[in-house]
Amino acid sequence: MKPAPLVGRNGSETQTIVHIGNASVGGQDLFIVGGPCAVENAAQLAAIADHLGPSPSQPGQIQALRGGIYKPRTSPYDFQGVGSPGLDIIKRISQQSGLPFVTEVMAVAQIEALVDHADVLQVGSRNMQNFDLLRALGQVNRPVLLKRGLAATIEELIMAAEYIASHGNSNVILCERGIRSFDGYTRNVLDLGAVVALKQLTHLPVIVDPSHAAGRRELVASLSRAAIAAGADGLIIECHPSPDEAISDAQQTISLDAVAALVESLGPIAEAVGRRLATAKSAPAQRQLVAV
Amino acid sequence: MKPAPLVGRNGSETQTIVHIGNASVGGQDLFIVGGPCAVENAAQLAAIADHLGPSPSQPGQIQALRGGIYKPRTSPYDFQGVGSPGLDIIKRISQQSGLPFVTEVMAVAQIEALVDHADVLQVGSRNMQNFDLLRALGQVNRPVLLKRGLAATIEELIMAAEYIASHGNSNVILCERGIRSFDGYTRNVLDLGAVVALKQLTHLPVIVDPSHAAGRRELVASLSRAAIAAGADGLIIECHPSPDEAISDAQQTISLDAVAALVESLGPIAEAVGRRLATAKSAPAQRQLVAV
Amino acid sequence: MKPAPLVGRNGSETQTIVHIGNASVGGQDLFIVGGPCAVENAAQLAAIADHLGPSPSQPGQIQALRGGIYKPRTSPYDFQGVGSPGLDIIKRISQQSGLPFVTEVMAVAQIEALVDHADVLQVGSRNMQNFDLLRALGQVNRPVLLKRGLAATIEELIMAAEYIASHGNSNVILCERGIRSFDGYTRNVLDLGAVVALKQLTHLPVIVDPSHAAGRRELVASLSRAAIAAGADGLIIECHPSPDEAISDAQQTISLDAVAALVESLGPIAEAVGRRLATAKSAPAQRQLVAV
Amino acid sequence: MKPAPLVGRNGSETQTIVHIGNASVGGQDLFIVGGPCAVENAAQLAAIADHLGPSPSQPGQIQALRGGIYKPRTSPYDFQGVGSPGLDIIKRISQQSGLPFVTEVMAVAQIEALVDHADVLQVGSRNMQNFDLLRALGQVNRPVLLKRGLAATIEELIMAAEYIASHGNSNVILCERGIRSFDGYTRNVLDLGAVVALKQLTHLPVIVDPSHAAGRRELVASLSRAAIAAGADGLIIECHPSPDEAISDAQQTISLDAVAALVESLGPIAEAVGRRLATAKSAPAQRQLVAV
Repeated sequence: MKPAPLVGRNGSETQTIVHIGNASVGGQDLFIVGGPCAVENAAQLAAIADHLGPSPSQPGQIQALRGGIYKPRTSPYDFQGVGSPGLDIIKRISQQSGLPFVTEVMAVAQIEALVDHADVLQVGSRNMQNFDLLRALGQVNRPVLLKRGLAATIEELIMAAEYIASHGNSNVILCERGIRSFDGYTRNVLDLGAVVALKQLTHLPVIVDPSHAAGRRELVASLSRAAIAAGADGLIIECHPSPDEAISDAQQTISLDAVAALVESLGPIAEAVGRRLATAKSAPAQRQLVAV
Repeated sequence: MKPAPLVGRNGSETQTIVHIGNASVGGQDLFIVGGPCAVENAAQLAAIADHLGPSPSQPGQIQALRGGIYKPRTSPYDFQGVGSPGLDIIKRISQQSGLPFVTEVMAVAQIEALVDHADVLQVGSRNMQNFDLLRALGQVNRPVLLKRGLAATIEELIMAAEYIASHGNSNVILCERGIRSFDGYTRNVLDLGAVVALKQLTHLPVIVDPSHAAGRRELVASLSRAAIAAGADGLIIECHPSPDEAISDAQQTISLDAVAALVESLGPIAEAVGRRLATAKSAPAQRQLVAV
Repeated sequence: MKPAPLVGRNGSETQTIVHIGNASVGGQDLFIVGGPCAVENAAQLAAIADHLGPSPSQPGQIQALRGGIYKPRTSPYDFQGVGSPGLDIIKRISQQSGLPFVTEVMAVAQIEALVDHADVLQVGSRNMQNFDLLRALGQVNRPVLLKRGLAATIEELIMAAEYIASHGNSNVILCERGIRSFDGYTRNVLDLGAVVALKQLTHLPVIVDPSHAAGRRELVASLSRAAIAAGADGLIIECHPSPDEAISDAQQTISLDAVAALVESLGPIAEAVGRRLATAKSAPAQRQLVAV
Repeated sequence: MKPAPLVGRNGSETQTIVHIGNASVGGQDLFIVGGPCAVENAAQLAAIADHLGPSPSQPGQIQALRGGIYKPRTSPYDFQGVGSPGLDIIKRISQQSGLPFVTEVMAVAQIEALVDHADVLQVGSRNMQNFDLLRALGQVNRPVLLKRGLAATIEELIMAAEYIASHGNSNVILCERGIRSFDGYTRNVLDLGAVVALKQLTHLPVIVDPSHAAGRRELVASLSRAAIAAGADGLIIECHPSPDEAISDAQQTISLDAVAALVESLGPIAEAVGRRLATAKSAPAQRQLVAV
């Protein structure tokens, strides 16, 4: 394996904790991200934040929202996301709900606006070795969620993180989201051995995307539990107020109630591996904004 | 997916429970199998049974022993197992310890003797679609542990089980043990999505072999926990009194203390998914035999 | 790579030539095998032999017939081949046409009868590491056509051949037939790099099955030409008098005219790489039998 | 398969021919590109042009030079190419030799300078679905050589080309360069079935990179011949005046004499499939510049 002086563990026991709004990832608390594949409108996101976000009285099931406004799609004729008009939507919902927002950056030219509107910049699987983008993200003051490429080795993922870190940004969160294989029953194969290995080989937080791995709703909860048991620091789950009506990835998108039930089931598993569900509640003022 | 009238769930909620000695797999109790890659001698197995098996006072960490006396090896010049002399060894240790024995059958001609000496006949990955062997195993009165082929689809594994069932033997246990992929860091990629899918698509018990999936000791415990969290009915783990001295698969073989610690850590995870560690203790008389 | 003292090249320039009836494989002449996926009846095979076999006046397009009487099928409920009644069919057609017959052996118990009725015993992909079968085939006096497993490495294929050779039978022909990959457009991915490597690493003949690799008729001719250009010693092609009516593998089965055109197109490519189309004509007496 | 109205064949027999300097790709003439993995200095490129390029008296073995000045490398600490100083080198050598230059573009910001200095802009495997880059290349007046991603499906490659075409640039050349698989003996697996399929499904030229597919020198010539026999429109081959001293990819880089011998061997194969080696000679004046 190639040397990774910055993100590699290199014998140290230190663990990077990335702070995101009131939440954090890499420490004892699990970091659960939920949201739609694609941002459709403000009401969609508000419903999710309302249903799953923290309130002054209870911690909520998710610690951050996700949703793409720029969507990487196989065909140029498929829906490409709402684009820049989505920037204000995600910022507003994020402020109202107190939930930080994770969204994908597909181009260097998008970085400047995204840094102003989002809390975590996601690099999608197709761009894991877009070194131009990685270098640019090394120079921004935002955590980067780096998804493993469809057929990237563990080493290549670590070195992609090293590109970002070596250009100045050490707040990198790795994400296993399934790799390509020969069996079409699941969309991809979730590689939890890679999660365990990444935790051993690097000091970065590692989260899991069970939705893209499975490609089927009925597998998401079990794979989520498996991921936490394997030692993942969190999850990023596709959900929607009306899953069947999701513009994209409907077949792997679960309902908000399903997310709530799933997260609840994670509690004892988290404890069994020395972790816990996040306990932060939102400040009262923030929550009132949602009601406006 | 091709129809599997016998092993497929086909809408039913019924779950097959396979009974093996005092233990069972597919019900609430986890079924943990431990033992070496290859049977080396009686002392090796006795040490494992002594360390990990049940006693009159406590349930023990494993419910069955494993170990190959006929070994499928890539090269004809590699160690091929102790062969038929191992038959008496496994039967004796099994009787002394009260632990049922799981061992691989590689040929139709081996079945008759194995049925007399072992409790579960394992079909290895390379033979998952050895239909001649599957048909013959359909006619024996022994549970079959059917390992997924290196690049077998979920459908192909189910249909291989259907071969056995359609020839008369419905006591089939499926086993996910990692599939081939492009990353050499782990020996294979553990496909827990397949485990979840197999539990949904069939009523057969499904266990996981984390050792062959990982190919590295330091990944075995975490993958075992993930497998139970995903809903697996049990595990088959390679262990050895002196792992570094194992004749084969040493790099993925863990110590007996490591198995004990690993199984203990499974308890709360099992509970979180509605399962529990097996609680059967051995009868006093049986245990005395081990001391002889 | 593990040592293969018998089938490995080990520095020698010697090339094994396997003689099969009047034909041979591994020498200058290409060895083209044609026939259906499954033997259906005598008329089917006679039509192929008549159309593509040699006659007293011209060499014909194929040097051997193929066709399975025992068929390995994913489901136990799919057509399993005509079975033992096919033995006499293949022997009769083979004698009438003067074309040797290649057929698959799926079980040790089938060997004895097949040795009496067929000229080449084929080991299918699923059985490439059925070591029991390989050992038994090491003891028969018939060439073995050993197909690469779906996800077998080059090393594993070589070592499977070494199993046969080390048990006494050095007449082994290797066959690349496509490996499993992530793209469903083709049934498998034809790995011609493996063909080149196998020719360099062993002294065994190496042929290519473009039909199973492609899984689509319209790719078969081009892949056949590519295989010969890569240095393959021959081809095994699925064809049928009425391809659309083939019981199995219809979508990858080509017509007899297509085979004839394809083989003709191989001539100049063979010459470009120092090979040639086979030139043996059948003896007059044999051919007359077909007319009966 | 998703519709590709611009690059898809959609029933038409028309074939796109992309013109590059005096050469073309997609017509009857093969288009052979040769050069180092990385541009090291002007002397290196001049030696290749001199040895393999056309002269007033003969057509030469290659129709274009290749060489990266920006290199995508797994580690940020590996050699990243000579960078912008290489721009003048490639332009000068190209003008002196009369050979067009193919070089990789890794970032939108590099396009403007590259359009001025290079003749074909290559999109590397890692960037095949860097849609930002594809869109930008849709707006330039230069042919694009689009390499298949490491685990991209045939459909995904076609749709990536459609991205470029739908943004205005229809001069796209597809390139199969091997896909990731489980066998480490070769670096990748050359998928010639994809080449045949791409020729059937699109009207774009399709070339093959045997060097990255094989990852081993001793396989390059045979795979090149196979590619042409399969119907590829050309090849892109890594070569170097002193292969063992190449800064990167030395183990798959062949000598200039090896390229010459390989191209010569392609002639009869090309003819067998209705193609031919390119016959254009350089104009005298241009060639004299090389001698300066």
